Amino acid sequence: MPGATPRVSIDSDRLWNSLMRMAEIGPSPNGGSRRLAMTQEDAAGRRLLLDWVEALGCTWQRDKAGNLFIHRPGRENRLPAVSLGSHLDTQPLGGRFDGVLGVLAGLEVFRTLADNDITTRRPLSLIVWTNEEGSRFAPAMGGSGVWTGRLDEDTFFTATDSQGVSLREAIQACDEAGDLPLGEQDLDAYFELHIEQGPVLEEQGDPLGIVTGVQGIRWYDLSLRGQSAHAGPTPMSYRHDPLMAATALIQALKEEVLADPEGAARLTVGDFQVVEPSRNVIPGEIHLQLDLRHTDDERLAALDATVERLARTAAEAEGVTLSLERRWHSPVTPFDDTLIASLVEAAEALGLEAPTMMSGAGHDAVHLSHVTPTVMIFVPSRDGISHNEAEYTEPEHCALGTQLLCDAVLARAERE
Amino acid sequence: MPGATPRVSIDSDRLWNSLMRMAEIGPSPNGGSRRLAMTQEDAAGRRLLLDWVEALGCTWQRDKAGNLFIHRPGRENRLPAVSLGSHLDTQPLGGRFDGVLGVLAGLEVFRTLADNDITTRRPLSLIVWTNEEGSRFAPAMGGSGVWTGRLDEDTFFTATDSQGVSLREAIQACDEAGDLPLGEQDLDAYFELHIEQGPVLEEQGDPLGIVTGVQGIRWYDLSLRGQSAHAGPTPMSYRHDPLMAATALIQALKEEVLADPEGAARLTVGDFQVVEPSRNVIPGEIHLQLDLRHTDDERLAALDATVERLARTAAEAEGVTLSLERRWHSPVTPFDDTLIASLVEAAEALGLEAPTMMSGAGHDAVHLSHVTPTVMIFVPSRDGISHNEAEYTEPEHCALGTQLLCDAVLARAERE
Repeated sequence: MPGATPRVSIDSDRLWNSLMRMAEIGPSPNGGSRRLAMTQEDAAGRRLLLDWVEALGCTWQRDKAGNLFIHRPGRENRLPAVSLGSHLDTQPLGGRFDGVLGVLAGLEVFRTLADNDITTRRPLSLIVWTNEEGSRFAPAMGGSGVWTGRLDEDTFFTATDSQGVSLREAIQACDEAGDLPLGEQDLDAYFELHIEQGPVLEEQGDPLGIVTGVQGIRWYDLSLRGQSAHAGPTPMSYRHDPLMAATALIQALKEEVLADPEGAARLTVGDFQVVEPSRNVIPGEIHLQLDLRHTDDERLAALDATVERLARTAAEAEGVTLSLERRWHSPVTPFDDTLIASLVEAAEALGLEAPTMMSGAGHDAVHLSHVTPTVMIFVPSRDGISHNEAEYTEPEHCALGTQLLCDAVLARAERE
Repeated sequence: MPGATPRVSIDSDRLWNSLMRMAEIGPSPNGGSRRLAMTQEDAAGRRLLLDWVEALGCTWQRDKAGNLFIHRPGRENRLPAVSLGSHLDTQPLGGRFDGVLGVLAGLEVFRTLADNDITTRRPLSLIVWTNEEGSRFAPAMGGSGVWTGRLDEDTFFTATDSQGVSLREAIQACDEAGDLPLGEQDLDAYFELHIEQGPVLEEQGDPLGIVTGVQGIRWYDLSLRGQSAHAGPTPMSYRHDPLMAATALIQALKEEVLADPEGAARLTVGDFQVVEPSRNVIPGEIHLQLDLRHTDDERLAALDATVERLARTAAEAEGVTLSLERRWHSPVTPFDDTLIASLVEAAEALGLEAPTMMSGAGHDAVHLSHVTPTVMIFVPSRDGISHNEAEYTEPEHCALGTQLLCDAVLARAERE
């Protein structure tokens, strides 16, 4: 049948071996990885990948941000490339799968195509994005951000690490800068396989999920100021206790979040600071950081109004003053419907009913989705643990995600 | 009428002038005082007081803890002395009234008796206790503690300040040690006039209050441990969030405290710590410090059981582990009924219906109450503020408290 997708099988053991081999570069004390962006370890990880793809006869290029593009020519190289990728940098005490799986799954796709002597209609491009983690240089998702024009170059290049080294200097020190202009290439599509970094697939018993987009996020800084006083001589009714206002707000907001009809709202209070804490002193000032997420922008906007209302109510009830600052808003990012449908179809061909799901975390794919059709595949994270040396994904799940990626990329690259 | 109390009037202006004069020693930037225990400022404050009492012909002695006893002989000096006093040391940025008022009110009583050529039946003793504040050397109420045998000498003398200087060394450096044995003297009674350090008298419009005892206090350290995870990929239903358990506990406990039939229960959360806080990470561990107070030991014991029950409930609801440590328990300290009655009577003679109240804060009088009949008088603190340079008590309230102290001390010293 002309145009039909050739069915090929990836090599599960070879994939696992390359994951374990990559984890030997920058090994961390408890079996994880430490390859902070644009360190010698990061560069060594990239070099290992390049050794592997050069052995396949692939060529590669870099842009000045250090983003790495590995080319696999097609039959019609004037067509835009179908791309796939992720990142190789890690958290300071990171895992062996976060980002790495997406890159080495791409390598495995290239190797599988080579094994089967397949040249796709469109060229393929395996991309390694610079500084996805953001732990050494803020912000995260920097390389994809600057490539897609969604992060300005100055912010990207002048970010400094804790030693005062700029990212520009670090890229030069690693000799990772190239001459490809930023964002020049036209891409036909972008696929990213990634570990879920959450517990849902594991809890549901699903080996993989098809990601339809990324949740919207709103960040808030709240300060509540009352009257510090001695615990003993001040009856409850005379108090203006910002800690009581803060805890009342958190509980009220949690109730609203749990009442979400879709069960898709999420509230995290990552920081709760008592200014000048002392055991027997009523606090005078409290600082809170809130992180609110939802898969639906309208519901997230409604929650935004709820935050403001509940914060004012809690502050008034205690007679304390409130300062509420909206720090950041990232709207819901939908992925490409055609690519989602192609993954559903490819999963069915593998005999799987893969659930669709929204990503809770940001990924390079979020930036890419603004310039090219984009989609992601998730595989389970044991106990939902990530950004941790204990991060783990079963070999069969890594393999299944890579097979789905291979099938979908091939179909996309072959299509008329 | 034989044995009747002579009525004499204290000098309000003289009292105020001595308060303001004392505040010139160790003045703090914003009109308060800084006379940390056993510093040159503290010693200079004591020296000023001694100049004043020596001008009245009084003699004085010190014990090795630096506690200062100023004698005013009576007609029958074999009888135990009626004592009154407080402390002259202050917080680092303290006020002009906390402690100082009780000492200088005693001076004013001595001066008034001298003005009126009165020699009381029993001798009088004006006492200045060492290191009441505890800000330079922990614990607070040290001098009265060691004098009454309720604090062991080793703890008292070996306490060090932030520079590593021990209290023993500081007492020697100030030349404030004497040879009076600790706790030797038999006292007939102990009276202490003090600012309230809370808002109740001011809010009620009462110029003074008669203190019937000190609240019971229980201190708790709680740790709640859950599972740290990314804010994004972890749905609410999969979380084990110790911050949510902590805030639920605080709100539930506050409700129980507010439901107290006497309105006498008090809950303070002076510290609330997120371990490794990060805006978009569900906290893994929370530490809380609770301070619970009540004027009734049975109710305080019931609240203790409530803390344990609510903490377990909150921890179980979130699936987090709880560690609850009882750090300290100070039972309710009742003052002496006869002395309380004598103050009520003396207040009535002044045309005042002084409310009785419990003290929320600890004072030297708590230790004294275990070795001699003890009572306290409170006068209002503006806005309930204390341990602060802005601490203020109206001159007429200082005078009224001192007059009541004078009348009650005189009646006690004269009694058959």
